[in-house]
Amino acid sequence: MKAILLTGFEPFGGEKINPSLEIAKALDGKETETYKINSRELPCVFGEAIDQLRLAIQEVKPDLVVCVGQAGGRPDLSIERVAINVDDARIPDNKGNQPIDKPIIQEGPVAYWSSLPIKAIVKHLRDAGLPASVSQTAGTYVCNHVFYGLMHEIRQSSIRGGFIHIPFLPEQIQTRPHMASLSLDDMIRGIETAIQVSVDYEQDLLLEGGQTH
Amino acid sequence: MKAILLTGFEPFGGEKINPSLEIAKALDGKETETYKINSRELPCVFGEAIDQLRLAIQEVKPDLVVCVGQAGGRPDLSIERVAINVDDARIPDNKGNQPIDKPIIQEGPVAYWSSLPIKAIVKHLRDAGLPASVSQTAGTYVCNHVFYGLMHEIRQSSIRGGFIHIPFLPEQIQTRPHMASLSLDDMIRGIETAIQVSVDYEQDLLLEGGQTH
Amino acid sequence: MKAILLTGFEPFGGEKINPSLEIAKALDGKETETYKINSRELPCVFGEAIDQLRLAIQEVKPDLVVCVGQAGGRPDLSIERVAINVDDARIPDNKGNQPIDKPIIQEGPVAYWSSLPIKAIVKHLRDAGLPASVSQTAGTYVCNHVFYGLMHEIRQSSIRGGFIHIPFLPEQIQTRPHMASLSLDDMIRGIETAIQVSVDYEQDLLLEGGQTH
Amino acid sequence: MKAILLTGFEPFGGEKINPSLEIAKALDGKETETYKINSRELPCVFGEAIDQLRLAIQEVKPDLVVCVGQAGGRPDLSIERVAINVDDARIPDNKGNQPIDKPIIQEGPVAYWSSLPIKAIVKHLRDAGLPASVSQTAGTYVCNHVFYGLMHEIRQSSIRGGFIHIPFLPEQIQTRPHMASLSLDDMIRGIETAIQVSVDYEQDLLLEGGQTH
Repeated sequence: MKAILLTGFEPFGGEKINPSLEIAKALDGKETETYKINSRELPCVFGEAIDQLRLAIQEVKPDLVVCVGQAGGRPDLSIERVAINVDDARIPDNKGNQPIDKPIIQEGPVAYWSSLPIKAIVKHLRDAGLPASVSQTAGTYVCNHVFYGLMHEIRQSSIRGGFIHIPFLPEQIQTRPHMASLSLDDMIRGIETAIQVSVDYEQDLLLEGGQTH
Repeated sequence: MKAILLTGFEPFGGEKINPSLEIAKALDGKETETYKINSRELPCVFGEAIDQLRLAIQEVKPDLVVCVGQAGGRPDLSIERVAINVDDARIPDNKGNQPIDKPIIQEGPVAYWSSLPIKAIVKHLRDAGLPASVSQTAGTYVCNHVFYGLMHEIRQSSIRGGFIHIPFLPEQIQTRPHMASLSLDDMIRGIETAIQVSVDYEQDLLLEGGQTH
Repeated sequence: MKAILLTGFEPFGGEKINPSLEIAKALDGKETETYKINSRELPCVFGEAIDQLRLAIQEVKPDLVVCVGQAGGRPDLSIERVAINVDDARIPDNKGNQPIDKPIIQEGPVAYWSSLPIKAIVKHLRDAGLPASVSQTAGTYVCNHVFYGLMHEIRQSSIRGGFIHIPFLPEQIQTRPHMASLSLDDMIRGIETAIQVSVDYEQDLLLEGGQTH
Repeated sequence: MKAILLTGFEPFGGEKINPSLEIAKALDGKETETYKINSRELPCVFGEAIDQLRLAIQEVKPDLVVCVGQAGGRPDLSIERVAINVDDARIPDNKGNQPIDKPIIQEGPVAYWSSLPIKAIVKHLRDAGLPASVSQTAGTYVCNHVFYGLMHEIRQSSIRGGFIHIPFLPEQIQTRPHMASLSLDDMIRGIETAIQVSVDYEQDLLLEGGQTH
């Protein structure tokens, strides 16, 4: 039985809802034969978000950590490949911080790879009829911040972890014509699938998932 | 009991599947208290597509006609507002025709409005958690061709009709990273909703659905 | 010597500048062997914009009218094909009007074609190294409103006219990462080219310029 | 007098031209009071591209290396922030290689930062009326491959270097409606500006250039 830590963020950027939090709530406590999910809410605040993630890791003692964040405008479940060691905020966070070109961990490496089986996840999501891609950038805001903080925290442990970006919910695009969205049901199904695949695959599959630029 | 004619297209542009046809098949014969659906497949061929639509209208004697077509790359259910009297083909149709700037109906008006309650449909789709927008252009290919042909055919009748563009299916974007798609279940649910709303609303709602450009 | 009426709009939607107005100012009074340009500024206000366009037509007595408007986010010079008889405002105009699904001209036809040689313009713009396409929709805001009003006004005259949408200027995208723009010099060169081509071509070229959806 | 090595790529992906090569040719031999440019063509081939870059560095003995590559579809000059240690090819390179998830340098770190003053470059490009942004990913194809290879090669030297992605030329989008492009003149002006700024700024400016996702 694997312990899973699943995190979602509070709303930010003027939104009233954050689909990542709705997914985390919906899956909190879910138990299968092979894993059990513990969900936590993270603040959309530089620094505090990593602090709370660290606490949650201490409490839950997870085998696997999946952090989820909203990427409004993206059309699919984006399985992030790499976290980079920089905060560069285009908009202030929920406490008004707007760091520019600050390292997340002073002495940390430039980047960390996700240790989730990202190609296997994309394959299984697509087989399940869900839009999914590998993403080569998680941005430079609080999502990448948490992703990098996570990978740094678990770098010498047996814990595996990674980050998944998700689209807006249909209710968030009511006044935005022709913007992409995904239903909450599909998102929940997608994150469940990603967790199951992460439990099942110790090693990733060798499948193409790159971009020419 | 309203008779509904629902049409989908055969695959085109190198695709092996056309989601509009899958929807039409899935809903063929569906009967509720207020309507019954008859589905037809249309060829992706200029001229022939309208001929077969005309035949289908004679056979089915519909109260309402909903034509559906694939708009690969669009992220939502696009309820088309207007059909224009021109064929201008960027790629050949399935019989190799590639008309440029030819009127669809020689003496026809420049354009016809959809007579579906397009704003009410968008509202109900969004309320049902589906991504949807009013679209101001159905293009200049076989979809617009059929849409214009339909509106011309029923212009002096009591039949109402219109056109809905749909995204790719997830299986169509396997090798296209970060392209939008929608599951077949959601598409079917969306077209059912659009038909139900069209039966329910004789008059459209006064809701914003425009674009600045 | 042809008299050309060229119009641009005042800024709207929170912008401090409108590239269409900068182009109109830059080309006002320009004279070649075959034409002379008279420029006018139009308000971004439903109704008033058409009123002022009508006055300008009476004053300038043009052979050719080219109206230009900003389409922030579009990456190229978009030569509009068709104007539709509806106002449907996603945002209020500069006087707070926000009409929804109102006809522009009560008894007007559904749509008018541009009478500019749109394919020839696109060809010459591309040959001049400028990004350009035919556009199948001018939206449903003040740009389409003026375009429709123009084509209605000149419908029984020998005056030819049409509408061109242009991207943001580089200075308008400073805080919008990875949004398209075009330099003012290129825009001016593009509109001059479009005017010259419109003077030179009484008949349009038969070139593909459509969209599949 | 600084020695500048400027590289462009041969065409790939079915294109007949590569704007990065046209820029490199146009600026080859250019000399100002502060720098002189030596240009080189790189093959669009994994492995060989880095080999030739290494040779060019030995020959030119540059103070500064700017590698340029085509990013068809992007609307602006993208100053790349970070190179990652992976090849993941969506399409084969010009010799048919299609590596998947292979490290570029077996024992290399996950990523290297650009050592160009990327924020200062973006600022000066925008001040010069050119569309520009910081980019958080150079992809996983030959461009990122060369970028990573460059930064690894110069990691312990005083040479500074980085990578810039550029849009299509207008001539490359003739059959692609509404795709972004930039004129060759603007591109050349942009790369010259980037080089001048790189020579002028030892330290980067502290300006926002991030993305939320």
